[in-house]
Amino acid sequence: MQDIKFSNVKITGGYWKTRQEINSNTTLRSVYDRFKETHRFDALKCEWKESEPNMPHIYWDSDVAKWIEGAVYIQNTKCDKYIEQIIEDAIDNIIENSDENGYFNSHFLVTDKDKKFCYRDCHELYCAGHLIEAAIAYYEITGKDRFLKAMCKYADYIEKVFKEQKSAAFTTPGHPEIELALMRLYMATGIKRYADLAKYFIDEHGKHPEESIYIKSVNENYNQDDMPISQRSTAQGHCVRALYLMCGAADVAAQYNDQALKKACERFFDNIVNKRMYITGGVGSSYIGESFTIDYDLPNRTAYAETCAAISLAMFANRMLVFGPESKYADIVEKTMYNGIMSGVSLDGKSFFYENPLEIDPDFNDVDTSTKHKLRFPITQRLEVFGCSCCPPNILRFVASVAGYFYGVDRDTVYIHQYVDSKAQTNTLRIEQKTEYPKDGKVTIICDTEKKYIALRIPGWCKKFSINREYVIKNGYAFIVADGHAEISVDFEMPVRFIAANRRVHSDAGRVAVMRGPVVYCAEGIDNGADIKSVLVDLNMPYELKDGEFPLPLIETYAYRPRQTNELYYEAGDDYEKIPLTLIPYHAFANRGQTEMQVWLLRKQ
Amino acid sequence: MQDIKFSNVKITGGYWKTRQEINSNTTLRSVYDRFKETHRFDALKCEWKESEPNMPHIYWDSDVAKWIEGAVYIQNTKCDKYIEQIIEDAIDNIIENSDENGYFNSHFLVTDKDKKFCYRDCHELYCAGHLIEAAIAYYEITGKDRFLKAMCKYADYIEKVFKEQKSAAFTTPGHPEIELALMRLYMATGIKRYADLAKYFIDEHGKHPEESIYIKSVNENYNQDDMPISQRSTAQGHCVRALYLMCGAADVAAQYNDQALKKACERFFDNIVNKRMYITGGVGSSYIGESFTIDYDLPNRTAYAETCAAISLAMFANRMLVFGPESKYADIVEKTMYNGIMSGVSLDGKSFFYENPLEIDPDFNDVDTSTKHKLRFPITQRLEVFGCSCCPPNILRFVASVAGYFYGVDRDTVYIHQYVDSKAQTNTLRIEQKTEYPKDGKVTIICDTEKKYIALRIPGWCKKFSINREYVIKNGYAFIVADGHAEISVDFEMPVRFIAANRRVHSDAGRVAVMRGPVVYCAEGIDNGADIKSVLVDLNMPYELKDGEFPLPLIETYAYRPRQTNELYYEAGDDYEKIPLTLIPYHAFANRGQTEMQVWLLRKQ
Repeated sequence: MQDIKFSNVKITGGYWKTRQEINSNTTLRSVYDRFKETHRFDALKCEWKESEPNMPHIYWDSDVAKWIEGAVYIQNTKCDKYIEQIIEDAIDNIIENSDENGYFNSHFLVTDKDKKFCYRDCHELYCAGHLIEAAIAYYEITGKDRFLKAMCKYADYIEKVFKEQKSAAFTTPGHPEIELALMRLYMATGIKRYADLAKYFIDEHGKHPEESIYIKSVNENYNQDDMPISQRSTAQGHCVRALYLMCGAADVAAQYNDQALKKACERFFDNIVNKRMYITGGVGSSYIGESFTIDYDLPNRTAYAETCAAISLAMFANRMLVFGPESKYADIVEKTMYNGIMSGVSLDGKSFFYENPLEIDPDFNDVDTSTKHKLRFPITQRLEVFGCSCCPPNILRFVASVAGYFYGVDRDTVYIHQYVDSKAQTNTLRIEQKTEYPKDGKVTIICDTEKKYIALRIPGWCKKFSINREYVIKNGYAFIVADGHAEISVDFEMPVRFIAANRRVHSDAGRVAVMRGPVVYCAEGIDNGADIKSVLVDLNMPYELKDGEFPLPLIETYAYRPRQTNELYYEAGDDYEKIPLTLIPYHAFANRGQTEMQVWLLRKQ
Repeated sequence: MQDIKFSNVKITGGYWKTRQEINSNTTLRSVYDRFKETHRFDALKCEWKESEPNMPHIYWDSDVAKWIEGAVYIQNTKCDKYIEQIIEDAIDNIIENSDENGYFNSHFLVTDKDKKFCYRDCHELYCAGHLIEAAIAYYEITGKDRFLKAMCKYADYIEKVFKEQKSAAFTTPGHPEIELALMRLYMATGIKRYADLAKYFIDEHGKHPEESIYIKSVNENYNQDDMPISQRSTAQGHCVRALYLMCGAADVAAQYNDQALKKACERFFDNIVNKRMYITGGVGSSYIGESFTIDYDLPNRTAYAETCAAISLAMFANRMLVFGPESKYADIVEKTMYNGIMSGVSLDGKSFFYENPLEIDPDFNDVDTSTKHKLRFPITQRLEVFGCSCCPPNILRFVASVAGYFYGVDRDTVYIHQYVDSKAQTNTLRIEQKTEYPKDGKVTIICDTEKKYIALRIPGWCKKFSINREYVIKNGYAFIVADGHAEISVDFEMPVRFIAANRRVHSDAGRVAVMRGPVVYCAEGIDNGADIKSVLVDLNMPYELKDGEFPLPLIETYAYRPRQTNELYYEAGDDYEKIPLTLIPYHAFANRGQTEMQVWLLRKQ
């Protein structure tokens, strides 16, 4: 199966139209301004001198590259001369300052040219990968090839150093990304050597444990160096590194029909979604090493759940569809889309979470209390820029290109993976969805195609649905005969659902998460008062949906809260008061100031 | 009110008789052997030389002093020549190696004599205090005064350096203890100067913030230096230091009728028991700075709750009784006695917890899992000795002298604070308690006294009781006319109770602790299988008490556990299975190998 490229899809209404407008109108410029202020763009000029402040950081190129990629995507639909000039200048700087081999790295070119490819954990190939992705984006959207040519030269040099001469100080990158970028480069250029180089990096990964970089207090799986990828069965180590690596692995497995590698990808996916994933699609439970930990270890208050990790889980899940339609993959894309990714950006598009906790308890989180004795908790408010600012431009490019996750095609079938008010058009087909999904579950699909079937994903969360046509369910998709022109009405019933976690997830014991459709809800202190951690929801309580200040409806219901007492401990009895409870979409939390937040609510039982 | 000294009380049966036998027969020798092996006793010879291993640590003297104190108490009833010789040798070493001023410190005397009293945080006055306490114990039990005389000389020197010449590098100790020791010294010798010196230290404390020692990442309250004691209203900083200090403050307040200081002691006590104390009487929520944190911050899995902190809370609560009978103080002594203190020692008397968590989850606690990514959790099994081994000898002396907490007298009244099968005899009275308390709540009291009243504490946990005599309740005590010879039968009804925590204690939200009488119960994995964190107790379920391998009865009942599933998340419904549930006294946890443990159980509601 292949995606229909996002550039062939126009989002015409609903949640994602709004988010894309904010992304274009605010996020694009805001991230640029912060990056400009923090010297990330100037660094591309390679003019920094020893003893000056603001030495270009080893990962700055990747931040700028992701911004360029996102900016180019946005320019495709909404050209802005000011932004265009920034893009052109940045690209000019990169090309002009690339060395005679095509190598570009704004840190090593100004600090120590002789130290190229000497330090496995210095993100050179990670930055190179993002530059390559940006160059492909620029080429595909604008048709201009100077950036792509420069990056091909760089990729050729990487091939020479790593694969032919093996003259680098290490075999595979400490931070993956180059693998998936090289596969994209192969698809953009048709030059098979790039795919072969990606395959080389994938095959060599985990075979050189002696090159492994141990981060202090972090385990030997940090860089996935303990075994070859094809032998892996669990998700270990640094979460984003692991997922970027597996994106490359999935691409390589598909291209080379590597069954062992494909099976490893499947095991890796299953381990995550069955044992190591927050209900929001957030992954990576621990800030120590920004990593996966062990099965069922999913603490809410100290959840790391980096925004980039949720994005990379969506990228990986989407790649798994290449092996054939299975709705569990698109389900996870959907879960991250509406929850763990979009929680990473404020509703106004300006501020970002690096980490996405599932619980906030400001009274116990605030460094300004009379004590500074605390374990480490995520911040309670989004920031405009971080020192390590990978997430903001990653959200930028994700939102700009989200439509690439909606549709797929294979020989016989057009697939609808995601339900979004949109129009897709290619040389051979035209699809239109009219829907307010996920505000409700009604979708009308109009499709003109010569393919035999239209296949609609039946969301994993959906227990009851109706389709106005005959269908056959296979791998979680409803296959409908297309007949040239089809008009299909679907209704996915979308009641409020209470979700329990496996009893091994001790952090969620006795608690339920409230969901409606794919959207996880949470309760905030600003709506519900203090001590939400102690509030009990009744699974049989009636509720109302209400349009509020958020792009998706609120849920209003009643719940129970222990009465306030002065005693620290007291005989348990009928000590509850009924209170109104307002739930908001999880991704919209922390948009109204610092307040308590709770996804997992006690269940009255 | 004054205590009847433990040396006038004989424990004749029940829980504490057993514990004292284990303390005498096993703990005494086991702690000695570990201290001998770790060179703590040899250090008293002051023969260590630069470049040798095992440099005497700054706090070793306090460990040995507490052992001597405990050993002397035990020798009082059960003389052992081998132990006697150890005590005599240790005392001889201390006396012989004290310098011309009476100063003794096995660290500074061999490392750098010129650095005496230069470092506020080097525990010299803390060690001195424990040596003084040991000397008083030795004098009071054996009648021999050579150790006491040596320590009086040392105390005189401390008075000269700190109060007269003010030649030390600091004004008050970094680690309190000297204050309460000096008050004890005054009471043992009648020399008022020692009380005055204690008062001096208490009065000066918090007036010299410039001398404060900040421990890295720990707040400015670490040593209670932010304000004078009489202004304090909350319990802050290092927990044991704070409580030792407040013991001294209570003694000084009583001796000098200092109302402001007394009120500060009351506020301090109330803040702890109403907002900062585990249900076990454990205190100090955080391992960072071994400290109190903020109101209602009582995490169970990472609870610090040092054994010494629970002991010092008992010491402080007992001292508060000096201001007059109030059952809330003796209630807290009782709470710590049966829970947070005795959890610190194994049932066989050999091994110790420094920290006493209220929850253990070995699957997520074990450093040998495939990941080392963890926040810091307490150990799951007791050890025989620690590098910082303050708790083992503290338990030794506490258990040996526990009878000192049972009885009190004032002008008119004999008070029974604690119900223990025992006989007390002084020149003017004779009391006998016949009881199996806390195995059940029946107590028979026979008392011959010329005092007007006998006052029985009505335990705070007790909702229903009967006394076969007329009584008047005042301050939580039932006052009964004594009439020379009294025989009183009391029955405190002792059902299993389910205790909820204040809704501000988010760690205990939706959960109850099971108690019977003063005893907190817990569920262990070895009895109940995995995932106890997910098990729900029904407050109306019948239960049985059963004598088992522990000194107090088990509770057997039924509970509910979510059924095992493969899914990470699933629609919540009727997904419970009924399971038998066995609860054991909390203090007996971790005596049968590493296993899950849970005090706070989900409440079916």
